Amino acid sequence: MFKVKVLNQEVLKSILQMPMVIEAVEQVYTLKAENKTTLFPMVFHEFETGVADMDIKSGYLEGADIFGLKLVSWYGANKEKGLPLLIGTTMIFDSNTGVPLAILNADHITGMRTGAAGAIGAKYLARKDSRTLLMIGTGHIAQFEIAALLHVVESIDRVLIYDPMCEQQTLKYTNTIKDKLRDTFNITKDINYEAVTDLKGAVLSSDIIITATPSRASMIKKDWVKPGTHISCIGADMQGKQEIDEKLFSSSIVVVDDIDQAINVGETQTAYREGLITKDGIYSEMGEIILGTKVGRKSDKDITIFDSTGIALQDLMTSKIALDIAKERQLGITIDL
Amino acid sequence: MFKVKVLNQEVLKSILQMPMVIEAVEQVYTLKAENKTTLFPMVFHEFETGVADMDIKSGYLEGADIFGLKLVSWYGANKEKGLPLLIGTTMIFDSNTGVPLAILNADHITGMRTGAAGAIGAKYLARKDSRTLLMIGTGHIAQFEIAALLHVVESIDRVLIYDPMCEQQTLKYTNTIKDKLRDTFNITKDINYEAVTDLKGAVLSSDIIITATPSRASMIKKDWVKPGTHISCIGADMQGKQEIDEKLFSSSIVVVDDIDQAINVGETQTAYREGLITKDGIYSEMGEIILGTKVGRKSDKDITIFDSTGIALQDLMTSKIALDIAKERQLGITIDL
Repeated sequence: MFKVKVLNQEVLKSILQMPMVIEAVEQVYTLKAENKTTLFPMVFHEFETGVADMDIKSGYLEGADIFGLKLVSWYGANKEKGLPLLIGTTMIFDSNTGVPLAILNADHITGMRTGAAGAIGAKYLARKDSRTLLMIGTGHIAQFEIAALLHVVESIDRVLIYDPMCEQQTLKYTNTIKDKLRDTFNITKDINYEAVTDLKGAVLSSDIIITATPSRASMIKKDWVKPGTHISCIGADMQGKQEIDEKLFSSSIVVVDDIDQAINVGETQTAYREGLITKDGIYSEMGEIILGTKVGRKSDKDITIFDSTGIALQDLMTSKIALDIAKERQLGITIDL
Repeated sequence: MFKVKVLNQEVLKSILQMPMVIEAVEQVYTLKAENKTTLFPMVFHEFETGVADMDIKSGYLEGADIFGLKLVSWYGANKEKGLPLLIGTTMIFDSNTGVPLAILNADHITGMRTGAAGAIGAKYLARKDSRTLLMIGTGHIAQFEIAALLHVVESIDRVLIYDPMCEQQTLKYTNTIKDKLRDTFNITKDINYEAVTDLKGAVLSSDIIITATPSRASMIKKDWVKPGTHISCIGADMQGKQEIDEKLFSSSIVVVDDIDQAINVGETQTAYREGLITKDGIYSEMGEIILGTKVGRKSDKDITIFDSTGIALQDLMTSKIALDIAKERQLGITIDL
């Protein structure tokens, strides 16, 4: 019989603060660069194409003495049933004994670590004097992206918000984002939030762009992007997804979270398939930039791209941190398994 | 937030009775024959060869509206730490919504479903007048094999027990098996349990043989096996494992749980590799025998072999049954995940 912690959504929201998740995700990137992590092969099953699927992502964080998995299911018809479309569960295990340590609702963790990833891209690659963020996409993940970015790039005083799907949604979202960021992430900074409809103009006047949509075609043309811009690409995480012009890849500094995932399922996939970038043409994985073994941005004129495909190790590390805090503060429940 | 049942070892021991597990495993075999199941690819990782590993086996039981996974870790050094060497956890999900249904300790379920599998082999393939069982192996799984067999082959009145590793262990095990079977499985039948050291003689005088050892070489020679014998092979579940003479496969009726697993990791692997049996030479999978679309044993002279490699679907179905009973009797605990 093992004592296993159970951390649900509510507990995780009370435990996880954005700065610690950013630190956790940075640690994953650096452990990966130091070969102290292993990603296991992904299991994917479509129950019915475009209707319902599930995947199991798993891996080993040697540097943190845990291994584990995240199972995520997506059921399009859940909306009508009053259930979330995406449902995720994470389990982590002690890699010294195989003993189960914790079972966690994966949803909030996924949002936090995905927001952290986009922000880390900007932290290490964007110009230090960046003032304007353009957030493309107003789905569930957007608030995490904005919140994390405001934590790491302190010079930001203007956030443009654009949704390719619906102008009205953009307005509605922009009107509520200030309250959301205050209530959920404790962000009280004085920022100008503006809904935009002219994407070209918005891109031209932005220093940092984060894309987090389910798009399957480029939304941003190469010649809209001014020198010095940084783009964190979050949306592309499976074959066929794309958010920005693939031609950008041949003239930008491209950093990714995992090279194999990036060329197969990330934003890099289209440019790679079309021969606009090779594996060697990818500047580096993020861990090397954080460790300082690679420089990243070289001048204020460079365009930098961070292709964040999302790796299970981010979920495992964030789960481990949540577990440590939960133990310390005696939060969550403990079951005999 | 989802209501998820947690069933630990203790609760599962009180819930699961061998007859219902045998029924569950038979149902898995027949659903598989009717193409109402999907096995997902296995994830396997060796932390250190021969020292520690883990695997994730998962699948979809369309016929029972669930999917799920079992994660099993093996840590050789756990013995010194007072921890079990094998630790398993199962999660099952509603395949209509993706909602998590239950988290279960996998150890007792694994024992029960593995015992059931061996017995089902004998139930459908052994001679109806079988009186003597030879149990080879005295590890944790042996008691489950004997218990399940006594449930399905009522004519058995003699159980020979042999352990290839240690004579003393065989004696000790034989002296306690009657009490074990009574206490754990409610078996009070009057059976002669005999420890044996002469394996050849034991094989010659047995009607049913169950092998459940970690052996990596044949223990039973082909010409020791008399006509009419049934053998359920349980031990082989990874490359390199073998318990019986591969030459037996060219002259026996060979039934397996899953053809691909059998030729890759099951008892069939050696005969298959050496060309003594082809895929087509495998008589059938067990589901077809249970459904009656294939006959199985054709005469009292046939030697029959059931190669049970063990499939995750058995764990999932047994877990589902345990969950249904637990709900009905309000056993186990319910967590908000």
